[in-house]
Amino acid sequence: MIFLTRRERFNAAHRLFRADWSDEKNMDVFGKCSNPNWHGHNYVLYVTVKGELNPEFGFVINLKILSKIINKRIIEKLDHKNLNTEVDFLKGKIMSTENLAIGIWEQLMPEIQRYGCQLHCVKIQETENNFVEYFG
Amino acid sequence: MIFLTRRERFNAAHRLFRADWSDEKNMDVFGKCSNPNWHGHNYVLYVTVKGELNPEFGFVINLKILSKIINKRIIEKLDHKNLNTEVDFLKGKIMSTENLAIGIWEQLMPEIQRYGCQLHCVKIQETENNFVEYFG
Amino acid sequence: MIFLTRRERFNAAHRLFRADWSDEKNMDVFGKCSNPNWHGHNYVLYVTVKGELNPEFGFVINLKILSKIINKRIIEKLDHKNLNTEVDFLKGKIMSTENLAIGIWEQLMPEIQRYGCQLHCVKIQETENNFVEYFG
Amino acid sequence: MIFLTRRERFNAAHRLFRADWSDEKNMDVFGKCSNPNWHGHNYVLYVTVKGELNPEFGFVINLKILSKIINKRIIEKLDHKNLNTEVDFLKGKIMSTENLAIGIWEQLMPEIQRYGCQLHCVKIQETENNFVEYFG
Amino acid sequence: MIFLTRRERFNAAHRLFRADWSDEKNMDVFGKCSNPNWHGHNYVLYVTVKGELNPEFGFVINLKILSKIINKRIIEKLDHKNLNTEVDFLKGKIMSTENLAIGIWEQLMPEIQRYGCQLHCVKIQETENNFVEYFG
Amino acid sequence: MIFLTRRERFNAAHRLFRADWSDEKNMDVFGKCSNPNWHGHNYVLYVTVKGELNPEFGFVINLKILSKIINKRIIEKLDHKNLNTEVDFLKGKIMSTENLAIGIWEQLMPEIQRYGCQLHCVKIQETENNFVEYFG
Repeated sequence: MIFLTRRERFNAAHRLFRADWSDEKNMDVFGKCSNPNWHGHNYVLYVTVKGELNPEFGFVINLKILSKIINKRIIEKLDHKNLNTEVDFLKGKIMSTENLAIGIWEQLMPEIQRYGCQLHCVKIQETENNFVEYFG
Repeated sequence: MIFLTRRERFNAAHRLFRADWSDEKNMDVFGKCSNPNWHGHNYVLYVTVKGELNPEFGFVINLKILSKIINKRIIEKLDHKNLNTEVDFLKGKIMSTENLAIGIWEQLMPEIQRYGCQLHCVKIQETENNFVEYFG
Repeated sequence: MIFLTRRERFNAAHRLFRADWSDEKNMDVFGKCSNPNWHGHNYVLYVTVKGELNPEFGFVINLKILSKIINKRIIEKLDHKNLNTEVDFLKGKIMSTENLAIGIWEQLMPEIQRYGCQLHCVKIQETENNFVEYFG
Repeated sequence: MIFLTRRERFNAAHRLFRADWSDEKNMDVFGKCSNPNWHGHNYVLYVTVKGELNPEFGFVINLKILSKIINKRIIEKLDHKNLNTEVDFLKGKIMSTENLAIGIWEQLMPEIQRYGCQLHCVKIQETENNFVEYFG
Repeated sequence: MIFLTRRERFNAAHRLFRADWSDEKNMDVFGKCSNPNWHGHNYVLYVTVKGELNPEFGFVINLKILSKIINKRIIEKLDHKNLNTEVDFLKGKIMSTENLAIGIWEQLMPEIQRYGCQLHCVKIQETENNFVEYFG
Repeated sequence: MIFLTRRERFNAAHRLFRADWSDEKNMDVFGKCSNPNWHGHNYVLYVTVKGELNPEFGFVINLKILSKIINKRIIEKLDHKNLNTEVDFLKGKIMSTENLAIGIWEQLMPEIQRYGCQLHCVKIQETENNFVEYFG
């Protein structure tokens, strides 16, 4: 079993808040991250797949294919977008890095499996000081 | 003459657009950066000051003071904000990295001079692939 | 289960040596790292916690709380300090990166558990070429 | 049990291809990576060992020894070399990052074990956007 | 006057040698960089342009245009290529980072000027430990 | 004229203080950087030389020679040392990054000139958030 990771990036706006909370409670729990006028990040996404080495190609999965899947399913939908309002598979969720990682996992998992390997980890780096990892 | 650079960071939302242009023209010129629902970045700011070495302290300027100026004048106003709508000194400007650097320069320049040295450069890194430098 | 990592930094002096060894033996085993006049590093600390997603907040743990714990328990005690002589919980240990990671783990573990999640990993990067990970 | 990682680097030429395939098939599967005139990379190698802390030294393994093993067994053989034609232990393999990681693992594993600890992971970063991890 | 920098990357093979020198002299001057079987690098290219701010767009030059020029004139010709044998504008030169920077400058300069700004600097990072800057 | 930069690193202990000031005044001016028990950093040194391209070699200066000069004159004297007490050419100076850069410049300048090029800049990165540049 061998592990291959692809890094991709997207720049997006978001805010942390719950519509069923007052502004005061949102500010108290989420601080400046709940600014109603949005803020944003250069998100860095690491997708790790695992599988047996395909002896014919020497690969777990062809990197061109892996990159194409991530771009089609994730980057095109998230890059230069508002994560709270413009992404179908994130609608209604609190836009924490945790929920973002879980949402991306659910999009990628069935796609990756078609190529004979497994999704191992979705890692999202939100700033240089924090990141989230989800293993399903 | 010696040069000292301080790095600070802020995360903010923005979009590139002109209110006097149609959505089509904004999209044609600025592409996905003109998304009306905003996007955002982890901006990295490098402020370079220059001056003679103060022989009493061995410094051009005390880093604690330089950091305090940048935080008070820039970071507190830009971090977790919407650059197009929430920052007094950026109002009415196209929110390009160029205009952001010029705006920050104008805020910092008079403050730095009070401490016996000169502002040399404001550098803004918007993504890992592009940055702007302004020398006044 | 989801994993969240916070990065913090501290700058400190240290040396590798055993008081019960001769200078020659210390030099032979630890090389220039045993310099009696000290040397130092920009240490980078990565603290990873794991837990179920709290559905109310969308978090494993609030990053503001995690950062506050790390700063109070670790950074305030280690930053701009001498690791061999000034840190209560490191006294009497050989000041290897391994022992530093274990010591930090022991400080953080009980604190983290109070917030309903678990400490997963303490990683210390001593230089760009070496780091240690401890999982308890 | 504690984990220690050493980073080392080598710059090398390679190409992805199978001698028993036509140029067309190589180009179709491997794309520009199959260029017959070679291309190359700044490879970054991370070697992670794990073991009990040696209480006498405060180490899993002395970093000087670990670095020496990696340099003698790997870096001297791969740095500024052609991975397809000049490295004994890679001969006849498709020169993917996966096969490179596996080949390095096989070289390092018996050496590391002589020092009372175990090889845990060989990670190869080929570009800033992709890396492979092998755990044996 | 304001300065805008775009970063692009290419992976290529090369060697340092002079055909009119013996293998011994090449080895003596260029060391392992003269390996006849090639080695390679992940080159990082920084292109800095300078000019007045275009008040209509808020730009020195549209980044999409700058990126397109660099990709068409440089990256397509150098990426996954052999710099000594496959690049028209580098033929017959010693393939040092210095000559690479000068060659790229000569390709980009006339193109950049068509857009009303000037090429200021071509910087090539060959490894994490060395880079070259050329200002024309 | 072309510019070549070499990066080297050293890990050292230091403190900011003046022996002719009270502990209180040192603490007031230099803060935690004046800790009498020392602290330390992973210093990163960038040495930039400039000159005409030597047409015989394609170099400004042979990188092997430049690296050897920096290692012999600077790294061997500073790495794993106490900058305040163990370095001949820094004795009696306030150990600010500014004075460190000037001291290194004075050591390197005459050496570099022997090779037909000029020292252009000494840059010292003390932490990820601050660096100093000295141009003589």
